[in-house]
Amino acid sequence: MDLMEIIKGRRATRRYEDKEIPKEDIKKILEAGIWAPSGSNLQSWEFVVVLDKELIEKIKMISPGLFGNPAMLVVGCINVERAKKGGKIGYPMAMMDVSMAFQNMMLMAYSLGIGSCPVLSFNKIALKELLEIPEHVDPILIVTFGYPKFWPKPPRRRPIKEVMHLDKFGRPFEE
Amino acid sequence: MDLMEIIKGRRATRRYEDKEIPKEDIKKILEAGIWAPSGSNLQSWEFVVVLDKELIEKIKMISPGLFGNPAMLVVGCINVERAKKGGKIGYPMAMMDVSMAFQNMMLMAYSLGIGSCPVLSFNKIALKELLEIPEHVDPILIVTFGYPKFWPKPPRRRPIKEVMHLDKFGRPFEE
Repeated sequence: MDLMEIIKGRRATRRYEDKEIPKEDIKKILEAGIWAPSGSNLQSWEFVVVLDKELIEKIKMISPGLFGNPAMLVVGCINVERAKKGGKIGYPMAMMDVSMAFQNMMLMAYSLGIGSCPVLSFNKIALKELLEIPEHVDPILIVTFGYPKFWPKPPRRRPIKEVMHLDKFGRPFEE
Repeated sequence: MDLMEIIKGRRATRRYEDKEIPKEDIKKILEAGIWAPSGSNLQSWEFVVVLDKELIEKIKMISPGLFGNPAMLVVGCINVERAKKGGKIGYPMAMMDVSMAFQNMMLMAYSLGIGSCPVLSFNKIALKELLEIPEHVDPILIVTFGYPKFWPKPPRRRPIKEVMHLDKFGRPFEE
């Protein structure tokens, strides 16, 4: 698959087969993550990779948007102490870094036939307790991974001429 | 190039050749952006694609971290009105969406031999005025694009066992 096929083919998948991801593929997904851009190269990210089935069940109970039966979930966090080195833009910068790292991981997963879904709504305090996440580390996004029961159809996308403005806001970029 | 090569090869590039990007490649980069994941499919993103040389010079004057001579820059914004439909998590969700869209664009650019660099520090008020960005739209990140004079060496990356924790925080994921 070429890059455009991977980018356009990736879908949010919420129903998974009961099938584990081989360790080799897990490593590829994680490796893709650590090569994302990072503001001032601070890499204020921490990720908790959850493979334990009981723990996944517990996390589902505190995450209203987390459905299905993922083989793995990854909790993306900001190491607030590291992020402070970036001054007042340190925290939003880290938020962007974590997001870009996850995009790498989701693309890599898709290229290996593995689906994924970002989940933003969860009980942060309960999650920190479950995963023993320390005070100075802030979980911001969960992404589930697994072999999808089916690949959903693409959702409607706002077209280029609607979201891409040329030189001044309101002038559509014409393809 | 396979996906891992693209992900690991992408570098932040700050010095560019004086060479335009063909329109076909610009379109591929923008197209990659609009296929990023989007929370609740709100797509609360807006992008201003700046190709006008004078405008780029003016933006450089208000962006202390923006060096070099990019052929194009893209200003990623949150449409705050749209983001509100996501409730109180709408804004951070949009921030992640914009970041993931940019990661797609930077990977696509690299696969076409084009470098890129995210720039987070700029005068927001001045930028909004220059690009006629309306009140309800909030610029959060600039990414420059161009043909790099050279590809910088990879910066040191925190290894997997340092940033990836297995099941509980503090237990390194061993490769």
